[in-house]
Amino acid sequence: MSALPDDELLAWAYLARVAEPPAASVIALTAELGPVDAAAAIRARSVPAAHHAVLAVTQARADTDVAAADLDSAERVGARLVTPADAEWPGFALLALDQADTAAKGGEPLALWVRGPARLDDLVTSAIAIVGSRAASAYGEHVTGMLASGVAQAGCAVISGGAFGIDGAAHRAVVAAGGVTAAAMACGIDRDYPAAHTTLLREVARTGAVISEYPPGTGAAKHRFLTRNRLVAALSEATVVVEAGRRSGAANTAAWARKLGRPLGAVPGPVTSATSVGCHRMIADELAVLVGDVDGVLALAHPEGKAERGSGRVRVTDALDADQCRVHDAFPARGVVSLDEIAYTSGLAVSVVRTALAVLEVRGLVDGDGARWQLSG
Amino acid sequence: MSALPDDELLAWAYLARVAEPPAASVIALTAELGPVDAAAAIRARSVPAAHHAVLAVTQARADTDVAAADLDSAERVGARLVTPADAEWPGFALLALDQADTAAKGGEPLALWVRGPARLDDLVTSAIAIVGSRAASAYGEHVTGMLASGVAQAGCAVISGGAFGIDGAAHRAVVAAGGVTAAAMACGIDRDYPAAHTTLLREVARTGAVISEYPPGTGAAKHRFLTRNRLVAALSEATVVVEAGRRSGAANTAAWARKLGRPLGAVPGPVTSATSVGCHRMIADELAVLVGDVDGVLALAHPEGKAERGSGRVRVTDALDADQCRVHDAFPARGVVSLDEIAYTSGLAVSVVRTALAVLEVRGLVDGDGARWQLSG
Repeated sequence: MSALPDDELLAWAYLARVAEPPAASVIALTAELGPVDAAAAIRARSVPAAHHAVLAVTQARADTDVAAADLDSAERVGARLVTPADAEWPGFALLALDQADTAAKGGEPLALWVRGPARLDDLVTSAIAIVGSRAASAYGEHVTGMLASGVAQAGCAVISGGAFGIDGAAHRAVVAAGGVTAAAMACGIDRDYPAAHTTLLREVARTGAVISEYPPGTGAAKHRFLTRNRLVAALSEATVVVEAGRRSGAANTAAWARKLGRPLGAVPGPVTSATSVGCHRMIADELAVLVGDVDGVLALAHPEGKAERGSGRVRVTDALDADQCRVHDAFPARGVVSLDEIAYTSGLAVSVVRTALAVLEVRGLVDGDGARWQLSG
Repeated sequence: MSALPDDELLAWAYLARVAEPPAASVIALTAELGPVDAAAAIRARSVPAAHHAVLAVTQARADTDVAAADLDSAERVGARLVTPADAEWPGFALLALDQADTAAKGGEPLALWVRGPARLDDLVTSAIAIVGSRAASAYGEHVTGMLASGVAQAGCAVISGGAFGIDGAAHRAVVAAGGVTAAAMACGIDRDYPAAHTTLLREVARTGAVISEYPPGTGAAKHRFLTRNRLVAALSEATVVVEAGRRSGAANTAAWARKLGRPLGAVPGPVTSATSVGCHRMIADELAVLVGDVDGVLALAHPEGKAERGSGRVRVTDALDADQCRVHDAFPARGVVSLDEIAYTSGLAVSVVRTALAVLEVRGLVDGDGARWQLSG
């Protein structure tokens, strides 16, 4: 599961539970002492003077060490604990800037429980958050499905909060489109909250990721939704709010996206619909850009243009085999090349290139007439 | 009808027909010579050298003098000719700045035929233009009615173009609300175009005004709609577009509002609706402000009197600080818990929990006897 030594992994699991996230003081202590010594110091109630703040936030749970049980629970549902010591840890520098602001549920996550094959570092460079009201309208769910499947087809992952309404519609559409979707949860990754989303979350975990900074078994609670919202924003390149009422958790996620300097879009709807009031407010107040279609959503994340979209982690190429990848990589960004040029650049036999090109063409990645080929625009 | 001497009024009526509006050169000649001498000069095909341009634009109609007949036709439908010599003439200084721009149908009107009791100078200081697609959706007509009657109830006049769709819905709503509405026409004020709006336009004229710069009997023509649109914008303090397709006359009125530096609002709608595409475009391009209710429309015209946005119902937990929220969230929906259990669940120190519980108890959110606590029923 993890590349870390057992003692370190157990220490991280202990630290991930000992204080209610976000716990900037525990992160700071761990950064200074390392996870094993930080955990020992908290257990012993003996921390360096500069880290005195750790004692208060860990007081209630310091003596309860269920780290091994947490790791077992995670493993049972196919989840892993991803820590700053892991290669896929994306860093949350922008959240860290905010770590004093605990009232706003800010600060970095100490570690993240992740259930599913998607890597966190891949998500942060390709994902778009699509969020909105639990009490979504039929219009909102329809538009969510349209946008989410379009984003997935464009090779971007879709992150949401796993909730009823817009979140669920976003995850469902991506799963149906065969794309990658991730759900950031306000409860443990083993909890399947809401219960009616058990099957959906299992699908999300099968192909993407269910993510939580809360230890297994943790129940959803109001403050955890707010804390979770910052992860949705932090794990994505841009955030789109499809529907949001006057007071809405989605507005909180949107606020996080702005705070992190990430592009924020909002989808308009009928002015007669209570579930669009929040979106209209964000647009009117120039906090969000009006987006109404897939191109608009993609342009939020990649304003430089279509050709650059998802260039870092083009998901559609993930399904290619090694030869197909080499052939794809052999194409120039612009311009037309011959079969022989591709063979030369890729170092593959012409017959292998020809077979690979047929696959790439079927997948819509390249266009050609048999003699001259180019990347699909 | 008019306070002007007959010869002057006849001269204005002649000048109003002798060139297709807008006719900046005729206005300039009239300003220099006065209406009677200007009309005589045009009839005689003898104008000062500086006004040579007048000859070309008046060549076709110079010999046709039906001024008396036009004034009779107007009087028959209860209309008057309002000229810069009348007290109610509002001045169109902003349009005048544009008078060279005849290709864009710009420039001041020379005079206006007005049918109805509303005074032009009153309109320009109180009116809001509400315009939109002829091919309006049921949603668009509904929202138009809501906004137009609200604006009327707030004591503002509503100007529109008398057309099918949004324009008609705006006029109808104001008439029904007992307010003042004015229709700027692309045909003569005696023409009732479109024919299906004959009754509606008669109602508009009875309580407000039907306005045209075209002489009685003039038929509607495509270029006249564009010319008319600038009057809708110029006669109002602010313009609101309720629905507009990708290519729309309403977008032209909107462009005029912007050109004149008048506030422009656009109403969002479903992103799945073709009749909202133009509005969304204007909002996304920051050409128009998103407006969704009567307050928003009124605030466009009078930002200083912007009503405080309703904050909605205040929840009792809104006033809690972060720790108090966490403690509140730590309670199960039903059942009794101990102080230690709350401390564990919330991750807060016992002393912090105790303080928070005291606040929650005072606010009536929880009940307890010091040892056992539960949410207030």
